Amino acid sequence: MIMKIDSTEEQVSRVIKEIAKYGLRADVSRGEFRTVIGIVGDERKVPFDHFAVMPGVKEILKIDTPYKLISKEYGRVAEGAGGLRTGIQIGDRTLGNGEPLYIAGPCAVENKKQLFRIAEEIKKAGAHVLRGGIFKPRSSVHSFQGLGGINRKSAETALRWLSEAGREFGLPVVTEVRGEEHVDLAAEYADILQIGARNMYNQDLLAKVGRKNRPILLKRHFGAGIEEFLSFAEYIAAEGNKNIILCERGIVPIGKGKEYTRYTLDLAAVPAIQKETYLPIIVDPSHGTGRRDLVYNMSCAAMAAGANGLMVEVHYNPEEAIVDGRQTITPAELSELIKACDEISRMVKSRAEIAGQGSTK
Amino acid sequence: MIMKIDSTEEQVSRVIKEIAKYGLRADVSRGEFRTVIGIVGDERKVPFDHFAVMPGVKEILKIDTPYKLISKEYGRVAEGAGGLRTGIQIGDRTLGNGEPLYIAGPCAVENKKQLFRIAEEIKKAGAHVLRGGIFKPRSSVHSFQGLGGINRKSAETALRWLSEAGREFGLPVVTEVRGEEHVDLAAEYADILQIGARNMYNQDLLAKVGRKNRPILLKRHFGAGIEEFLSFAEYIAAEGNKNIILCERGIVPIGKGKEYTRYTLDLAAVPAIQKETYLPIIVDPSHGTGRRDLVYNMSCAAMAAGANGLMVEVHYNPEEAIVDGRQTITPAELSELIKACDEISRMVKSRAEIAGQGSTK
Amino acid sequence: MIMKIDSTEEQVSRVIKEIAKYGLRADVSRGEFRTVIGIVGDERKVPFDHFAVMPGVKEILKIDTPYKLISKEYGRVAEGAGGLRTGIQIGDRTLGNGEPLYIAGPCAVENKKQLFRIAEEIKKAGAHVLRGGIFKPRSSVHSFQGLGGINRKSAETALRWLSEAGREFGLPVVTEVRGEEHVDLAAEYADILQIGARNMYNQDLLAKVGRKNRPILLKRHFGAGIEEFLSFAEYIAAEGNKNIILCERGIVPIGKGKEYTRYTLDLAAVPAIQKETYLPIIVDPSHGTGRRDLVYNMSCAAMAAGANGLMVEVHYNPEEAIVDGRQTITPAELSELIKACDEISRMVKSRAEIAGQGSTK
Amino acid sequence: MIMKIDSTEEQVSRVIKEIAKYGLRADVSRGEFRTVIGIVGDERKVPFDHFAVMPGVKEILKIDTPYKLISKEYGRVAEGAGGLRTGIQIGDRTLGNGEPLYIAGPCAVENKKQLFRIAEEIKKAGAHVLRGGIFKPRSSVHSFQGLGGINRKSAETALRWLSEAGREFGLPVVTEVRGEEHVDLAAEYADILQIGARNMYNQDLLAKVGRKNRPILLKRHFGAGIEEFLSFAEYIAAEGNKNIILCERGIVPIGKGKEYTRYTLDLAAVPAIQKETYLPIIVDPSHGTGRRDLVYNMSCAAMAAGANGLMVEVHYNPEEAIVDGRQTITPAELSELIKACDEISRMVKSRAEIAGQGSTK
Repeated sequence: MIMKIDSTEEQVSRVIKEIAKYGLRADVSRGEFRTVIGIVGDERKVPFDHFAVMPGVKEILKIDTPYKLISKEYGRVAEGAGGLRTGIQIGDRTLGNGEPLYIAGPCAVENKKQLFRIAEEIKKAGAHVLRGGIFKPRSSVHSFQGLGGINRKSAETALRWLSEAGREFGLPVVTEVRGEEHVDLAAEYADILQIGARNMYNQDLLAKVGRKNRPILLKRHFGAGIEEFLSFAEYIAAEGNKNIILCERGIVPIGKGKEYTRYTLDLAAVPAIQKETYLPIIVDPSHGTGRRDLVYNMSCAAMAAGANGLMVEVHYNPEEAIVDGRQTITPAELSELIKACDEISRMVKSRAEIAGQGSTK
Repeated sequence: MIMKIDSTEEQVSRVIKEIAKYGLRADVSRGEFRTVIGIVGDERKVPFDHFAVMPGVKEILKIDTPYKLISKEYGRVAEGAGGLRTGIQIGDRTLGNGEPLYIAGPCAVENKKQLFRIAEEIKKAGAHVLRGGIFKPRSSVHSFQGLGGINRKSAETALRWLSEAGREFGLPVVTEVRGEEHVDLAAEYADILQIGARNMYNQDLLAKVGRKNRPILLKRHFGAGIEEFLSFAEYIAAEGNKNIILCERGIVPIGKGKEYTRYTLDLAAVPAIQKETYLPIIVDPSHGTGRRDLVYNMSCAAMAAGANGLMVEVHYNPEEAIVDGRQTITPAELSELIKACDEISRMVKSRAEIAGQGSTK
Repeated sequence: MIMKIDSTEEQVSRVIKEIAKYGLRADVSRGEFRTVIGIVGDERKVPFDHFAVMPGVKEILKIDTPYKLISKEYGRVAEGAGGLRTGIQIGDRTLGNGEPLYIAGPCAVENKKQLFRIAEEIKKAGAHVLRGGIFKPRSSVHSFQGLGGINRKSAETALRWLSEAGREFGLPVVTEVRGEEHVDLAAEYADILQIGARNMYNQDLLAKVGRKNRPILLKRHFGAGIEEFLSFAEYIAAEGNKNIILCERGIVPIGKGKEYTRYTLDLAAVPAIQKETYLPIIVDPSHGTGRRDLVYNMSCAAMAAGANGLMVEVHYNPEEAIVDGRQTITPAELSELIKACDEISRMVKSRAEIAGQGSTK
Repeated sequence: MIMKIDSTEEQVSRVIKEIAKYGLRADVSRGEFRTVIGIVGDERKVPFDHFAVMPGVKEILKIDTPYKLISKEYGRVAEGAGGLRTGIQIGDRTLGNGEPLYIAGPCAVENKKQLFRIAEEIKKAGAHVLRGGIFKPRSSVHSFQGLGGINRKSAETALRWLSEAGREFGLPVVTEVRGEEHVDLAAEYADILQIGARNMYNQDLLAKVGRKNRPILLKRHFGAGIEEFLSFAEYIAAEGNKNIILCERGIVPIGKGKEYTRYTLDLAAVPAIQKETYLPIIVDPSHGTGRRDLVYNMSCAAMAAGANGLMVEVHYNPEEAIVDGRQTITPAELSELIKACDEISRMVKSRAEIAGQGSTK
C-alpha cells in the first residue's frame, strides 16, 4: 500500500489525517522529487478506492507480501522519489553499501578488564563494532543470566563499561535487550540495540525498540521461516525505524543422531532475503555452528553467499569465557578471518558483476 | 537442589538468608511434617557442602534436569513433606486431579454480544473456562491485532466484557498477555493469564507473570523441544508461582509439499511431559491442526494420550470469525466433543490402572 | 485422469489400446454398472481432448493431486460404478471397514522358539496379524541385520518359521522387504509385504511389490510430508495393486535438547490422510515413540484419531530382545491395550456419527 | 575395529579366516610398511580379546562411531601404514587433494543433440565431469521418469549417448542408479555411479554399487543427520569400495510461510564432515536451493566452506529443460562461477594455513 504524491504539503497532511481517521498509521518518505506514503495497520480497513481519488495522490501501489515497508518494491519507489537512504550508518561505515561490517566481542560482558582487553584486540584485528552481552537470554533459570540479570545497578555498570570501551577504541557498541524494561536503559548506552533470536516473535519488544532512534539488529528465530523473519522486521519498520540489520544465526537442526553443529546455518537465506528487502543482512557463525573450529570456514561461506557482514564471538582466552566458550575464537584468528572475508567479498561481487549473476548488493 | 529440614523456624530463616547471601533465591515449601527449600539461580555459585552442614538441614538432593522446581522429583519430596498441592484450582475444578478441564471460546474477542453469546453456549456445552483473545499476536503488523491492539481504553473495555461474561455464566476466564506492559492490566480482569507460543522464550515476560497470583497457561513454542519447554516453565516457578498449566499446540511441520495441517500436534509430548513434571498439560487441537474438520478426532486423541484438558476455539458462526475461522468449531460440535472426551479420558485411565500402564495422572 | 464408460467391451479395449499408444498405462475398474479407466504415466503426454470424443467415453475427470488412483475422488467414481472394493481382506477381517486391525510381534525374528511363543501369546491377546522382521534395515552396517542379513538360506528358514507360526495360530503374517531382491522370496511366504520407512522413496521397490498379488504395508518416511507419502503409495497402485495399508510411524523430531521421544508421531496425519484417500491407515506407536512406557497412551490416541489399526512390537521378555527392546511391550500389556483401543474406536465413531464430525471411515 | 599387523602373509590369512569364522568380513589394507585389517559386521559378535592375541596382531584399535572404515581415524592408521590412498582419481583430477572438481550437465538427458551440445559447452566452461539423469526419481508416477523410465532399450540408448558425449569431450560421466536393477547396466557406461538423496537409506542398493569398481557419488538424504549420512556411506565402504564422493544437497526446510528455497543447504555440514572422514564432499547448489538466481552465490559459499567440488545443473536453454529448469544455469554462467570458485577455494585454503584454522583438506 503505497501512494505516490507530487503535491502540496497541505495535500500530504490531508492524506495523513485521512489515514489516521481509519485507525491506520502513515509511513511518510519525503523525497527530493516526491513524497511517498506507506500505510501501516489492519489491511481489511484500508479504503483504497477512496484514497486513490484524493487530491495530490498520483497512484496507489499494493504490495502483496506481509512485509511492505521493508520490501525492495517500496524501497525502489521511495528511493526513486529521493526519500529513502537504504544504507545504515554505523560509525564511519555504511552498512549495505558494499563494505562488509564486522561485529565482534565476548558473548557476555564479565568485567571491565576483560571487556577493554577484548575491545582493544578486536579493533586491531579489524572489527568495526563491539558486541557484549549484558542481558543474556538463557535456556535455564539456573544458569548465569549476564551482569544485567543481577540487578539494575549491575546492569547499568556493565552498560557503562561497554559504552566506555567503545569510545576508547573507536567502536560503536551493540548489546541485546531481552525484555521491554531494558530498552530505555540500554538505549542510553548502546549505539545498536540487538533483539535476540528468542525474541524475534516478541512484537511488543520490536515495537518498543522501533521507537528508539537507534539501528536495530534483529536475529532470525531458529524456528522461523524467511517470510516470518521479514514480517516481524516489519513491526520495527512500522514504528518508523527502518535502520534494521537482519542477522541469520541458524535454524534448529533436523535429522537423527549425534548433533555435529548446534544449529543449521541457513546461508541460502542471505541472497534469498536480499532479493526481498533493501535491509542489510549479516551472519553469526558462532551461534550458527556452536563450534570454534567451523567459524573460519562458515564466515568465509557467509561472505561468499553475499552477506553484508558478520557477528563473531571473540575472547582472548575462549576456554575461560563463562558463556559459549566452545564457539569463541581468538583475536588473532579474527584478524585472519577478516582478511579472508574482505577478499572473498570483493571477489564474489566483482565476478558477479561480470556475469550479471548473484546478489547485486 | 533441594534441602530437607525438620527444624526450628529460626534455622529455616538462617538457611534462607544464607542462600540470599550467595545471590540466590529460596523456594520454600512449608509442609505439615517438614520444610523443603529449593534453590533458584546460577548453579555454579551454590556451595552445596556449606549448606549441607548447616543446622537443621537434613539432606541435600541435587536434581539434574534444568527444570528443578517443577520436576516430579521435587514435587514428590515437597508433597511427601506435606508442602505442595499439585492440583490447580480453576473455579470449582481441580486441574490435574483426574477431571478433564475444557477451555473454550472465540479466538478473538470481537464485541460484547459475540462474547456473551459464545460464553453462554460453551457453558451449556460443558466447558469450564472461557477463553478470548484481546492482545492478539499476529505474524503481520498489517493484520487485526485484537481489541487490545487499538489502544488501552479499548483493551480495558474488552477485558471488562470478558470478566463480566465469565461472572455471568460461572466461567473463569483466560486471556493472553503478549507484552510485559499488558500483565498488570490483564491480571486485574482475568483468572488465568496465558503466554502464547511465540512468547514461550520471553523470559522477562515469564518472570513478570510468575509474580502474579494467578494460574499461568504456558503454550509450547512451535520450534521448542520438550526440555526447553519445561526449562522455560521453570522461569515462572522460580518466581514462586507453581500454578502453571502447560499446553501443547503443535510444532512446525517438516516435509515437502502441500501443508495438510498447520502444525504437527505432538501428542506423545503429553505422556512424556507427565513423566517429568507434576504440572498438568492440556492440548490445543485448534491451533495444533488449523483445521476445523480435524478438531474432533484430535481432541479425542489428546485425551486418549492422557491430556488433562483441552483448549478449543468455538464460535457460533465460524465463517464470520475475524481470526482463525477455519479452525473454529460450533458450540453444538463442542458439546459432542466434550462427551466423547469425558468417556475416553475415564476409559483410558481405568484400563491403564488394570494394566499398570500408561500415564498415572 | 478418469474416464467413465458405459459401453461395449470392444470400446473399452480400444480406449486401453489408445492409452498404450501414447506410452501410458490404463488402470481398469470393471464395475457392475460401468467401467472406469484411470490413466497412469507422464501427464504431459495425455491428449485429454482426443480421449474425450472416443466412442463409449462418457466423461473425463481430471484429478489435481499427484495421487490419483488412490484418491477419494477416484475411489468414489469407481465404487459408484461398482468396480472398486475399498476394504482390504486380511485373514477374516476387512481392514478399512470399521473393524480395527492389530498387528503385533517381535521387531526381529530371532529363532523359531521365540517366534512361536510370541505368536501364540499375541493371538491370545487379540492380535490379528503376526509381524516379524527378517530383513532388518539398520543405520549401521556394524549392527545385527536380521536373519535375512546373513545369507539366503538363513533368510528362507526364518521366512518359513514365520509362515508356519502364522498357520499354526491362525495369523496372517507380514514382513519387511528391504531390497528388490527380497521381493520374490518374501512373497512366497508372507501374506503382507512391508515397505519400511527408509524405503518409502524407493520407487523401483514400490513398483516391484506393486506387481505382487499381496497387500502392501507402506510406512511413511520420517522426513516425508503427507503429499509425498501418498504420491509414493501411488507408485504401488500404478502397478495395479490397490491393497495398500498406509502406516504412520513418526517423523524426525525438531527442537533442541534431550530427545524424549525417538520420533514425533504425527497423529493428525491419520484423519488428514483419510480425507484424501480410501486407503486404510494404521499407526506404529512402538517406532513412533521409541518408548515402551508411551505405547499404551499413544495406541489409544491413534485409535481416537481414527486409525484403522495398530502395529505394535511385542516380546515376552522385552529386555532380551536383540533389537529395539526399549520400545517393546509384553503380551499381557498388549491384551489390555487392545481392549482399550477397541472401546475407544467404537466410541469415537459412534459419537462422531451423532455429531456429524470427524473421520467417517 | 582395526588391527595393525607387521607379519607374514600367512598370519594375515589366518586372521582373515578367523574373522570369517565369526560371520564377519575383513577389510584389508595392504600397505608398504604394514597391513591393516578392518572388521565389518555385527559388533556384538566380535571377540576382541581373542583377536588381540593372535600371532602377527600388533594392536586392536576400536572406533566408536558407527562409521569406521571411512573415519579419519581409520584413514590415518591405514595411510600411515602406506595402505590407503585417500584421493579419488576422476579422469585426470584427484578429488580430495586440493583441486576442486566441477560436475555439470543437464538434470535429465533428453536427446543426443541436447546432451552433446551441453557437454561441449560445459567442457569449455571448465567443468571436469558430465552429469546426465537417465533414471530419474520423481515424486509422482505421473511425471516424466527420464529416458530410463520408458524401457530398457531407451535406457541403454541414453546411457550410450552419455558415454559417447563423455569420450568426445574428454569428460568422465556420472549418472544416477535408482534401483538395484539399473546397477549392472549403468556401470557398463558410466564412470561414476550416483545414489540419489531418496536412496541414501537404501542399503541393498548401496551394497550393490559398493561391489562395482567405480567411484560412487552418494547424496545426503534431505531428512538425514550427518551421523546417518556417514553411517550409510559405510555400507558402500563395507563392500570394499572406498571411492565414495559425498554430496550435500539440502535438507527439508522448516518454518512457516512461503518457501523461498526448495531445501536448506547445510553448508556447515561440509567442514563438519571433513573432520570426521577422509572422503571428499561436494555440494549441489542446484537441488539445494531450487533457484537459478541463488546458484552463483551458493556455489561460492560452498567452496568457501571448504567443499571439494560442486555439482551444478546446466542447460543452454534452462526454460526448455523438461525437468528442474528453474534451478538450471547456462554454460556462460557456469564459466564465471567456476572462475570465482577456483579463486575462492585457493584463497580460503591459503588464509587457513596462515591462521592454522579451518578445514585442512
